[in-house]
Amino acid sequence: MGVKVAVNGYGTIGKRIADAVLRVKDFELVGVAKYTVDYSALLAHRNGIRIFTPREKFAEFRNAGVEPEGTVEDLVDGADIVYDASPGKQGAKNKELYVRYNKPAVFQGGESPEVAGLSYSTLCNYEAAIGKKYVRVVSCNTTGMLRIICSIGTGQLDSVFAVIVRRASDPREDHRGPVSSIALDSSTIPSHHALDVKTVVGDVSIETVALVVPTTLMHMQVMNVKLKKPLSTDELAGLLRSSGRILVLDSTLLKIDSTGKIVELSRDANRPRYDIYENVVFSNMVKLAKEAFTLVQAIHQEAIVIPENLDVAYAMMNLETDPLKVVKKVNEALGIGALQGIIPSEAKAS
Amino acid sequence: MGVKVAVNGYGTIGKRIADAVLRVKDFELVGVAKYTVDYSALLAHRNGIRIFTPREKFAEFRNAGVEPEGTVEDLVDGADIVYDASPGKQGAKNKELYVRYNKPAVFQGGESPEVAGLSYSTLCNYEAAIGKKYVRVVSCNTTGMLRIICSIGTGQLDSVFAVIVRRASDPREDHRGPVSSIALDSSTIPSHHALDVKTVVGDVSIETVALVVPTTLMHMQVMNVKLKKPLSTDELAGLLRSSGRILVLDSTLLKIDSTGKIVELSRDANRPRYDIYENVVFSNMVKLAKEAFTLVQAIHQEAIVIPENLDVAYAMMNLETDPLKVVKKVNEALGIGALQGIIPSEAKAS
Repeated sequence: MGVKVAVNGYGTIGKRIADAVLRVKDFELVGVAKYTVDYSALLAHRNGIRIFTPREKFAEFRNAGVEPEGTVEDLVDGADIVYDASPGKQGAKNKELYVRYNKPAVFQGGESPEVAGLSYSTLCNYEAAIGKKYVRVVSCNTTGMLRIICSIGTGQLDSVFAVIVRRASDPREDHRGPVSSIALDSSTIPSHHALDVKTVVGDVSIETVALVVPTTLMHMQVMNVKLKKPLSTDELAGLLRSSGRILVLDSTLLKIDSTGKIVELSRDANRPRYDIYENVVFSNMVKLAKEAFTLVQAIHQEAIVIPENLDVAYAMMNLETDPLKVVKKVNEALGIGALQGIIPSEAKAS
Repeated sequence: MGVKVAVNGYGTIGKRIADAVLRVKDFELVGVAKYTVDYSALLAHRNGIRIFTPREKFAEFRNAGVEPEGTVEDLVDGADIVYDASPGKQGAKNKELYVRYNKPAVFQGGESPEVAGLSYSTLCNYEAAIGKKYVRVVSCNTTGMLRIICSIGTGQLDSVFAVIVRRASDPREDHRGPVSSIALDSSTIPSHHALDVKTVVGDVSIETVALVVPTTLMHMQVMNVKLKKPLSTDELAGLLRSSGRILVLDSTLLKIDSTGKIVELSRDANRPRYDIYENVVFSNMVKLAKEAFTLVQAIHQEAIVIPENLDVAYAMMNLETDPLKVVKKVNEALGIGALQGIIPSEAKAS
């Protein structure tokens, strides 16, 4: 029997965590909490996932042919650990429930850092999460930047300047804009991403500017990183690849020079929901200068935080002290690394 | 009588140059060369603009109700100066014609720098264009960056790092993509923009990365500029404003936080074709650090180079030696500065 996992909320992140939990033999999915009847509830039910709902929603779910397994409280009570995958800021309200039932809980990046004692990203601070009761996994763009920063090592960095070109919405959020503008993501510099990075690695000097553009597929990031001492091309490529979470590919060799084409690769590789768990770094868009480098990477906003969500449970539940072993285990369960295999070895940072 | 101006090519840039020439009393529009019958030819004809075409197209234009005034050669022969506004790389072929008729010619940024002895941007090198026979006005993104760089002064700059978020196409180019991707603009770093900046100010250390996004309205640029010595907020704001070509506005005060809203401002201000000749710098997105600043600006790709195109003729035709006087004259003719008047004085770089 694995660790009993509950997922509270079954939207973009919740459904992906639930499916990922089902693929990891150390975990057992107790069920998911769902608050509205929709297609995803019906699909989950058909796939044998146990659905819990607020008591006042029982009739509504029964009408739709879904017999609730119990209340949200029942779900939490029966779990060893809870993933809170509710909409931003709702997690802070849900915490009361986890406290009442004395359950460890993983919160998402949409919550403020105060919701948990620790903001987390595996390559940066796995050890700090060992035995912790409440941890917040930082959001997509922050995770993408932290994987780069912590692959290099914060001690090696002088400063980071990043421009984030954000997708306007997820594919299903067709009520959101902008439709044809480029918009400011925040009204000041830095965007919240720099502050969020600092919740994990407080000693890094970082500035971020974010713009929002009319696409749904992925974010793109341009990172300009100043180093304390020079790195060779091979050293940098080695650090990025050895992280286990960064796919390095040559856009000219593979003819993959856009987020649309990355998604097509993932669809052709039969990734579930075409989810791309890795940072996708274009090797030909990595430029080393004396004590600095610039890189361009694409980040799949819906999927990138899923591996880190699984990782952190190994720490919180005291299952493993070595992050490398955890990354290896989770990568195997999610099929991360299989894509890297198709990339010829000569396609490296240049 | 003003300087006799011919415009060879009547597309996105050509029609704007022609209309701008009509507004400057020092110039007289001899006519435009048009190579295909379309709505813009009919509109120009109706508006009294003389249309010249290749001889073999006379019948086609006559059929459409447009009597050609003569051949393209006739147009060039009757002008004191020619604007080449043909599609990229065609200008180099057209140059033979300008040489044959011994006419000064202004080329656009789509041509390679070799087409003219000088690549040009008013705030940087007006004086170098005085009396020159052939000059190339650099393209939209380059013009946008050069206005910032030369407002500050190249001697004040240590280095520039810029990320350019490009519109996918102009509004009428509805055959172009991407429709929903974020795409790399080039397969290496820097993008061509850094190289193009150096054609004007060769001594500036600059790196650029460009991404293409699915919108048609304007580009956005994030510039991170390292200075040789610190500037105060007021000094920086003063330098930008005194350029005469940079509109500084507060996105929170005016509720203009996207390219779509900038365009709406320009439409409401009755700018012809909603053309925005100024760099639009968001004052609340200007952040000064010790010896550096970051800014975000929007650039209207269709219109931004029009003032520089007019300016340069004053230099080439030996009409004026002082660029400040030329900028003032052209700004008045095009209505540049009127928008700045609506911006409260407290809305400044912060």
